[in-house]
Amino acid sequence: MKLSISKNELNDAIQQVAKAASSRPAIPILGGIKIEVTHLGVTLTASDTDISIQSFIPVEKDQYVIAHVDKPGSVVLPAKFFVEIVKKLPSDQVVIDVGANFQTIIRSGSTEIQMVGLDPEEFPVLPSIEQNDTLQMPGDLLKAMIRQTVLAASTSEQTPILTGVLWTLSGGELKFVATDRHRLASRTSQVDTPEEYKFSNIVISAKTLIELSKLVPEHNALVDIVVADNQVLFKLDNVLFFTRILDGTYPDTSKIIPQTYKTELVLDTKNVTDAIDRAYLMSREEKTNIVRLMTLEDGSIEISSSSTELGRVTEQLEAKEFNGEPLRIAFNSKYMLDVLKVIDSEQLFIGFTGAMSPIIIRPVDHAYSMYVILPYRTTG
Amino acid sequence: MKLSISKNELNDAIQQVAKAASSRPAIPILGGIKIEVTHLGVTLTASDTDISIQSFIPVEKDQYVIAHVDKPGSVVLPAKFFVEIVKKLPSDQVVIDVGANFQTIIRSGSTEIQMVGLDPEEFPVLPSIEQNDTLQMPGDLLKAMIRQTVLAASTSEQTPILTGVLWTLSGGELKFVATDRHRLASRTSQVDTPEEYKFSNIVISAKTLIELSKLVPEHNALVDIVVADNQVLFKLDNVLFFTRILDGTYPDTSKIIPQTYKTELVLDTKNVTDAIDRAYLMSREEKTNIVRLMTLEDGSIEISSSSTELGRVTEQLEAKEFNGEPLRIAFNSKYMLDVLKVIDSEQLFIGFTGAMSPIIIRPVDHAYSMYVILPYRTTG
Repeated sequence: MKLSISKNELNDAIQQVAKAASSRPAIPILGGIKIEVTHLGVTLTASDTDISIQSFIPVEKDQYVIAHVDKPGSVVLPAKFFVEIVKKLPSDQVVIDVGANFQTIIRSGSTEIQMVGLDPEEFPVLPSIEQNDTLQMPGDLLKAMIRQTVLAASTSEQTPILTGVLWTLSGGELKFVATDRHRLASRTSQVDTPEEYKFSNIVISAKTLIELSKLVPEHNALVDIVVADNQVLFKLDNVLFFTRILDGTYPDTSKIIPQTYKTELVLDTKNVTDAIDRAYLMSREEKTNIVRLMTLEDGSIEISSSSTELGRVTEQLEAKEFNGEPLRIAFNSKYMLDVLKVIDSEQLFIGFTGAMSPIIIRPVDHAYSMYVILPYRTTG
Repeated sequence: MKLSISKNELNDAIQQVAKAASSRPAIPILGGIKIEVTHLGVTLTASDTDISIQSFIPVEKDQYVIAHVDKPGSVVLPAKFFVEIVKKLPSDQVVIDVGANFQTIIRSGSTEIQMVGLDPEEFPVLPSIEQNDTLQMPGDLLKAMIRQTVLAASTSEQTPILTGVLWTLSGGELKFVATDRHRLASRTSQVDTPEEYKFSNIVISAKTLIELSKLVPEHNALVDIVVADNQVLFKLDNVLFFTRILDGTYPDTSKIIPQTYKTELVLDTKNVTDAIDRAYLMSREEKTNIVRLMTLEDGSIEISSSSTELGRVTEQLEAKEFNGEPLRIAFNSKYMLDVLKVIDSEQLFIGFTGAMSPIIIRPVDHAYSMYVILPYRTTG
């Protein structure tokens, strides 16, 4: 294998796949990046047991020559050093030359690097996915749906299924749900797929979705999604992203969401976020994060927190709307802030069914997202 | 005590002094910020045992009213929460009102914060420094001298004196020296002070100098420096910065610097920095950071490093000048990079007196700074 390639294009592709290389590989080959060179272009692949990412660099793009292939072939190079050194090479051009026993020489300017390459035959084979039904959605919608749900996924490995986000498709509507039993986030959207195509209990690791999200370009490209038996494949511009579906059955969360409310508030999203953020600062000192919300007789609300050592924060906030019974409730302010930061609406609705019942938060502008937080039992 | 003050001005002053408040105070008062209000303005002070910082906010600046004083007085407030909450207050104006037992109420917009204040009488008294001779120097020169020497100070508390930077003044020339026994950095400058004023063995913690450096404004303000028996006082715009002088006698470092060289090189600073940076990446994988430098017969030099598992980096570099004997030497590439990053000259001089003797690095443009690195003993 021998090729000459643009440093920047090589570097971009390496950055895309590097996240899938294991940082503490059980066997060295899993800590590597596979480079496959044909006369069409260069394919980079990295894979740990959970995710695999593949990026393709064509030999020509928009009539610019990106790579010149002298001899097709392939090799696996240790990811960590390879990722760092390519970034710092002195010239815009990089020559990669693989000899006997996968001994690799990388040349750029007056720098020469000898690397011990590994046998590509030992590299994991990518999952083979039959091209069944496909979901198609704009990249920025996928990013938004991920951002608005991963906050509620569990970070504890004690219940692995709750570290994921549940995907359900039915009647052309895609729904994401995440919960760690203390809070829940849900987001739906219409997607472009045959009406009769449906699936349920597809659970994808929240951490993996966050990594995927970083690879989805900012400009409004379409992402193709193929759901197979135990893998999901995301097709981006020049990148394929494979992830394992988590094992197990996701719990039924439909029953915890109240259908009617005893108290309903509409609040300005920014004002309530800032007020709870200040109360959070005080509650954090107590290590409880407890913040209280109380409706006042004049129809406004009071948000407060206190610390025995430091003192007390009290915030008064106008309610845009206030219907139903007076209320006193306490909740984890960190959980509430996580929700408030992803609400994409200038005003939000909060519904309560009592001081011990789930709190529902929704944007006012649309019904696509919904959040639930369980309140704290407190005295006084 | 009662005043109304601009949030931004208060916040700026808090940020300046906060670094001196102890983050893990032995007694609560040391984790506080003292606020003293007179009809002239507001003075904020924070102090742990090593450094004290004081910032003054005048009631008027450039004809703008910054603070309105209703009642002079003083209080000490816990720094950590105070620092964070002031930043996030909703209105541009902040009212601070201190009642009985130093109970403090902070109001801004519809936010009210009650804080448990502490008795300012218990706050440490600032060192009293007699106004003796004063050094005056531009802020950016002081910042440069700090940046170009602290890299060589020891980070180990085993020999506390070496965690400091040695200051010497003689004949109007101020000199900074730092060493951790493996490397040495030295920087001199002419300063504005009476010719006969001199001192020696003034040692100031490198960490403290780095904090001081952050407070020195970017614009070319003058800094007044007063050296007293066991304290040094730095006077910036509205800020006073006091630091303790480290106890002990700084070792004599004059003997380790060779006067003649067997091999002399002049190199392009950027090229040699980049080449050693790439070699460092490989040497880091071996956890030794060993990089080798070898002169070649054609007058160029070769920089290389190797790792048994990964391979080898070889860099070839043109020498702008090369005088003396051929040379092979090995050194800690991290130490060398620390030096190369602060060299303020497009070309640098390196002098060697043999593979086991100190390596001297100097900018070519001037003789104000000088660096020494001890080589590694290696085989082969």
